[in-house]
Amino acid sequence: MDGLVIVSNRGAVTFFRAESGERTYSRGAGGLVTALNAVSRQSENAVWVSSATSDEDLSVAKEGGPYEVEDLRVSLVEHDPEAYDLMYNRIANPLLWFVHHGLYNLPFSPDFGEDTKDAWERGYVRVNENFAEAVAKMVEGEESPTILLHDYQLYMAPKLVREKVGGDAFVSLFVHIPWPEPDSWRVLPNYIREGVLESLLHANVVAFHTNRYARAFLSTVEEVLGFEVDAENGVVRAGGREVWVRAYPISIDPSEFEELSGSEAVLEEEEYIKSLPGKLLLRVDRMDLSKNIVRGFRAYGRMLEKHPGMRGEVTFLAQLQPSRGGIPEYDAYADEIREVVEEVNEAYGTSEWKPVELSIEDNFPRSVAAYKNYDALLVNAVRDGMNLVAKEAAVVNEKDGVLILSEGAGAYEELKDGAITVNPFDLDEQAEAIYEALTMLEEERREKADLLRRTVHSNTIEDWVEAQMKDIAAYRRR
Amino acid sequence: MDGLVIVSNRGAVTFFRAESGERTYSRGAGGLVTALNAVSRQSENAVWVSSATSDEDLSVAKEGGPYEVEDLRVSLVEHDPEAYDLMYNRIANPLLWFVHHGLYNLPFSPDFGEDTKDAWERGYVRVNENFAEAVAKMVEGEESPTILLHDYQLYMAPKLVREKVGGDAFVSLFVHIPWPEPDSWRVLPNYIREGVLESLLHANVVAFHTNRYARAFLSTVEEVLGFEVDAENGVVRAGGREVWVRAYPISIDPSEFEELSGSEAVLEEEEYIKSLPGKLLLRVDRMDLSKNIVRGFRAYGRMLEKHPGMRGEVTFLAQLQPSRGGIPEYDAYADEIREVVEEVNEAYGTSEWKPVELSIEDNFPRSVAAYKNYDALLVNAVRDGMNLVAKEAAVVNEKDGVLILSEGAGAYEELKDGAITVNPFDLDEQAEAIYEALTMLEEERREKADLLRRTVHSNTIEDWVEAQMKDIAAYRRR
Repeated sequence: MDGLVIVSNRGAVTFFRAESGERTYSRGAGGLVTALNAVSRQSENAVWVSSATSDEDLSVAKEGGPYEVEDLRVSLVEHDPEAYDLMYNRIANPLLWFVHHGLYNLPFSPDFGEDTKDAWERGYVRVNENFAEAVAKMVEGEESPTILLHDYQLYMAPKLVREKVGGDAFVSLFVHIPWPEPDSWRVLPNYIREGVLESLLHANVVAFHTNRYARAFLSTVEEVLGFEVDAENGVVRAGGREVWVRAYPISIDPSEFEELSGSEAVLEEEEYIKSLPGKLLLRVDRMDLSKNIVRGFRAYGRMLEKHPGMRGEVTFLAQLQPSRGGIPEYDAYADEIREVVEEVNEAYGTSEWKPVELSIEDNFPRSVAAYKNYDALLVNAVRDGMNLVAKEAAVVNEKDGVLILSEGAGAYEELKDGAITVNPFDLDEQAEAIYEALTMLEEERREKADLLRRTVHSNTIEDWVEAQMKDIAAYRRR
Repeated sequence: MDGLVIVSNRGAVTFFRAESGERTYSRGAGGLVTALNAVSRQSENAVWVSSATSDEDLSVAKEGGPYEVEDLRVSLVEHDPEAYDLMYNRIANPLLWFVHHGLYNLPFSPDFGEDTKDAWERGYVRVNENFAEAVAKMVEGEESPTILLHDYQLYMAPKLVREKVGGDAFVSLFVHIPWPEPDSWRVLPNYIREGVLESLLHANVVAFHTNRYARAFLSTVEEVLGFEVDAENGVVRAGGREVWVRAYPISIDPSEFEELSGSEAVLEEEEYIKSLPGKLLLRVDRMDLSKNIVRGFRAYGRMLEKHPGMRGEVTFLAQLQPSRGGIPEYDAYADEIREVVEEVNEAYGTSEWKPVELSIEDNFPRSVAAYKNYDALLVNAVRDGMNLVAKEAAVVNEKDGVLILSEGAGAYEELKDGAITVNPFDLDEQAEAIYEALTMLEEERREKADLLRRTVHSNTIEDWVEAQMKDIAAYRRR
């Protein structure tokens, strides 16, 4: 086939100058990067286009590219810093993230206005134009390239790319966060809510992690644009194009985690983990409003209140990665997290026992060490695109640990039968789930843990890529 | 046909003892009461069942009934005061109202727990059982009575009534508030979200004010219960029953408002209204979080900022009815309303001109007097079942006043073409809409106002009743 271009705001590689003056780089980590690495391996000529972020990135961007780094060919896009700031800090992270996760307190916020429109046009749309130009340059002269756009920073790209590369290119956009229902989507100003939908319908495939999000997207197209959709087959017809709306639940590379779990760094952290008294209740999350961290501690407190026998018999380790500091809602949330932890520790702690260990730091080896050793893992997100923690932890855990899983996590669709599922808004239900998880009999624990492991192994990141590649081929053949 | 029974929590009549010791009563007012009065006129034997609220109501309740009052036959239901309090103040008003209107700040509230379950079982369900018993007594011995249940206080009644009166009775439940989409409904604890849906599917017709709510209900049944629904025809099959899901947009009695507008009380208030300087921008609302009162004042402030020529040329009269004082969210909202009004008045007011007149009182004659005289009416609700203010005001206004209407109001479906429509979250859009409304040329004003009047007259409260009666007949014939 013609060229394969992967596009995401964050790339796999950041360049910098070593002290010696030589160009060097670091490779990023995280779920999306792992996933797109797997996509990139599909074709020798795949190019991965992303935003230049460091000074040295800008030099690479100016040189054109693609630039080869190990097994990758990357191309970097330069943005005007103000445009990028508006896209990232005014539109993508506060506004789109909040709408997709249902985080607004609607009687009071948001307040949209001319500043929103300005940030949209001079920021978000501008950055998307830069990406479209870069993509067009990459596929120049090709008749039917494959262009895979990723995530909510690039919603305007399908339209802008299509205008440049024509109808024979295959274009998809993968949304890695939950898709909201029509009324939530309607919160957005008209130029965004209709603009984004119309742009997305310039793709050939619009992809999500769950069937529920795919259905919500189809409803949104129906309700907001008034288009007819074929919900049963997941098809929308728009502008003479057939748009397939599909779910491909993202996953992990189990072997990567199996390897990691034996690494020196993880083994070192395991000493700390094993020093914690009693059973281990674990959560590992970015400190985001959507993760439901405060209610998790409250529920744990209720559990200790109702089951005094558990006091001293469990430690709740919360491994929290700082996030989006400087945004007032996030700073307030971080404060509330610290307060509620203090409350629980004061109410139930003793000189020998601290009910909650709060670890606010970016410490991946410690997280993996904790994955190996938890008795119960709490994933109680209000809403979450997928939640890879649930999958990562399941494959390396050595204790048949029990997963407590929110109905609001994307992972719910695949993992619910291997988990204790909870309504993220019900504190007593979560309290009971924690108790049940910590006291579950061995046989049931093993059955559930086995099911989780099998489920993750039956849909790895390679399967995720393959399913998409199959559909691309089927789409081209149809 | 057999008997007709109307059931609503609030009734048309409250009894009390006059000083003379005689039993007397007062008739209630408001949109729903007017509407149900019209339903009641459909049959000479219609009985209207509602909760006893006063001491004298309790005496009436104990006597059995039905009790005749003018053209009505009423029957009152006695509740245990604690059960009623739990239903009303723990479930219906905070919890169901908030979910239906999307008022929760989900990262932080609600916190459901055992207290919720207790309030549900000992309060909400208990009150619904009382209603079901009262209804059963009313229709004893009848083979196919018609039982029309109204609103979100009675969600468990369809099932409880059906169990008592059997399959040949026609049972409907009318939801007078917006129906939320599946993800919002999922916020509720399982016993409520599934319990309510399963109960509602014991009705023959589930009715809403708009097609959008009816569609949202069908999606909710599909997503939450996993039932197949026939969305095109608005039909769900459940328990061997065909459940019709229908929209009947509620309306008003135009003649009632035409009469009112000439009444002494209204004419007196008109003197005050006419003394306000400049053009009249009006809002009339209960002080509810869903009404978007704060953003309305902010938008008005922005309008004055951007169009200095309007300063001194307009008065914004906000006629606000106090509501749900004592609920912390409502008290805080009332404070914020007062603050923002002060801000706007301080920023733009002069010794001769007060930009906002804030009138917090229950003064219906003044509202009607203002209806007659506004140049622009602001209805910018975040979400609103119907919003009858828009319809009432349209029929008595004498100035071809312009309606500014939120996309989130139920009235949007019928009235949007006669209004300037706004996204309730976009301040600048609302500011421009206010400016546009106040400066619109006469011909366009007249055209829009004519269209509004014709629309309201073409679907009065009598039409609303008739459409439902027709469907009841069609359902029985099918």
